Amino acid sequence: MKTKTKYLEFKTKEKIELVNITHQVEEVVRESGVQEGLCLVNSMHITSSVFINDEESGLKEDYKKWLEELAPYDRKRYKHNLTGEDNAHAHLKRQIMGREVVIAVTGGRLDLGTWEQIFYGEFDGQRKKRVLVKMMGK
Amino acid sequence: MKTKTKYLEFKTKEKIELVNITHQVEEVVRESGVQEGLCLVNSMHITSSVFINDEESGLKEDYKKWLEELAPYDRKRYKHNLTGEDNAHAHLKRQIMGREVVIAVTGGRLDLGTWEQIFYGEFDGQRKKRVLVKMMGK
Amino acid sequence: MKTKTKYLEFKTKEKIELVNITHQVEEVVRESGVQEGLCLVNSMHITSSVFINDEESGLKEDYKKWLEELAPYDRKRYKHNLTGEDNAHAHLKRQIMGREVVIAVTGGRLDLGTWEQIFYGEFDGQRKKRVLVKMMGK
Repeated sequence: MKTKTKYLEFKTKEKIELVNITHQVEEVVRESGVQEGLCLVNSMHITSSVFINDEESGLKEDYKKWLEELAPYDRKRYKHNLTGEDNAHAHLKRQIMGREVVIAVTGGRLDLGTWEQIFYGEFDGQRKKRVLVKMMGK
Repeated sequence: MKTKTKYLEFKTKEKIELVNITHQVEEVVRESGVQEGLCLVNSMHITSSVFINDEESGLKEDYKKWLEELAPYDRKRYKHNLTGEDNAHAHLKRQIMGREVVIAVTGGRLDLGTWEQIFYGEFDGQRKKRVLVKMMGK
Repeated sequence: MKTKTKYLEFKTKEKIELVNITHQVEEVVRESGVQEGLCLVNSMHITSSVFINDEESGLKEDYKKWLEELAPYDRKRYKHNLTGEDNAHAHLKRQIMGREVVIAVTGGRLDLGTWEQIFYGEFDGQRKKRVLVKMMGK
């Protein structure tokens, strides 16, 4: 059995940003030498997500607007912000979008559908964050 | 280590449909010969989900109504639809319901709780879509 | 390849409760002897979640309030409750928070970020429920 662990680092310019990380994950798959197996990609933070969707600029705007409707920034709305934080909304947004994806590796490559792209979803950015990629297979 | 990959195909009659795929996944587990391991089941599309919940017709109606409230079809609401699509809502609904499930395989069978059933959740159907089942274990 | 399966049992005092289970999962990792691999933790029920977020009491209150807004208890709102149940809302809340997490195991330990804590999210409690922990690796 082969395994490989890699930590990707991100520091987004904006507080909320959706970053396409597909190529970086593909590179880890190649480095691992795994031909058949599973690839876990997860945020190591609780105010950001890893998710799979479409690389289309309009849709990325739609996601941001929609998440703001479902879980508004509104600093005074949340008890968590009494700790001095202002990021309660980011904890909620991340639950909608998810923490992680698990992707099949087939024939040495990520076994993704035609339009599937992997994103790091940052909801409390402008500081250093990490994404973990774990490969396991043969 | 044993692995097995299978692609299931779906073309739903309705635009939005929740299809129970538990038996089809169980069949892949049997075919794989894996006794102990993990089973990944994911949509290969970005407007549909794989999720686990209850096979109860009322609840399935509740899900559809609820998702329509949280992420309405409303064609003019979304920038993504300026590309000529009308399925932005389906991209959002799928994030609520999730892309994938990972299920334990124990003693050669899906290790599911009593009421756990696996569903393909289609939110932009009436065309051919695929679900990937990846087995890995011993 | 090493695997290990363990079932954790919970019976919460409240109907809705978020229980930190990080230490219990860590114990299963140790018992498994796995140094490099994956750890699946999932609810075996369809009205509860396993998710990763922050151990902060204000945030836990925020989650409960927010989930009640997105998927209210309101008994008469749901067709599922015509079966005699009153827990349709719990089926919906669980979809927001998710069924499972998959966690990397590195150097014999859960490879979690600084603030990542694992929670059992109960939305229809006061009865016995189970969480499955499946270890797989080398």
